[in-house]
Amino acid sequence: MTHKEHMRRAVALSRQKMLEGEGGPFAAVIVKDGRVVAEGWNQVTSLNDPTAHAEVMAIRAACRALGTFSLEGAVIYANCEPCPMCLAAAYWARVSMVYYATTSADAAAAGFDDRFLYQELRLPKPQRSLPCVALPVEGARAVLEEWAALPGRTEY
Amino acid sequence: MTHKEHMRRAVALSRQKMLEGEGGPFAAVIVKDGRVVAEGWNQVTSLNDPTAHAEVMAIRAACRALGTFSLEGAVIYANCEPCPMCLAAAYWARVSMVYYATTSADAAAAGFDDRFLYQELRLPKPQRSLPCVALPVEGARAVLEEWAALPGRTEY
Repeated sequence: MTHKEHMRRAVALSRQKMLEGEGGPFAAVIVKDGRVVAEGWNQVTSLNDPTAHAEVMAIRAACRALGTFSLEGAVIYANCEPCPMCLAAAYWARVSMVYYATTSADAAAAGFDDRFLYQELRLPKPQRSLPCVALPVEGARAVLEEWAALPGRTEY
Repeated sequence: MTHKEHMRRAVALSRQKMLEGEGGPFAAVIVKDGRVVAEGWNQVTSLNDPTAHAEVMAIRAACRALGTFSLEGAVIYANCEPCPMCLAAAYWARVSMVYYATTSADAAAAGFDDRFLYQELRLPKPQRSLPCVALPVEGARAVLEEWAALPGRTEY
């Protein structure tokens, strides 16, 4: 299958699942070594899970299918440009490439916060609309140091 | 319980779950109306889920417990500053406030990519290490427009 065929599948899935009432109009297909390993679609409102975006669901399904937490070499086809949550999830999953058919501006025009979130994440913390405040407590940094020295830890 | 007591719980949980081999040294507690509604901890390597960060797991658990996709009015106590995925998840969940005990710099010192990801998300797409490429196909934007006009849609 070609890049465009995978993308057409993502677009068709985004419409199908939207019409079935699963959530917002978003879907993603993950391909590795020329094979579709997972599909995902937005299920925020049907699962009551604000993290259940298309790419996140596809990444989780692909990792389940492959029995690994690394999708190195995999490609995501998403009907819309990933929001910052999904893009960061793709980095953490070590995905190698992302294709998207519509942009954050298109998503914004349909009422979604993707573009707003990119703007927020670029701001210094005190200027963001979600307050993020340091609250240091004794021993917190020591846990991170303990991890760095932990024998047999699995890095990710 | 005070802010510091909730944070001490997050720190204790981060160490406990790390030592139990669940994943990285990260945990989060979610409080709403003075009541702990959920706890979460990093389970990336034990669940083979790269999205299973502490805050994401806590957000999912809190939404399950409360039967809603909105955590408006809720506060997250995290032993470490949220990575971009977790911060964006907190925005999508409409969390009202985040407290953290250690910083992205502390996480970087322990070998984690949080700070690198914040840098990546601030870059223009062509300069990022994960290629994100537009691949427009016919009908993709029409799905988003259809959503905006869909009767009975549940917004989130």
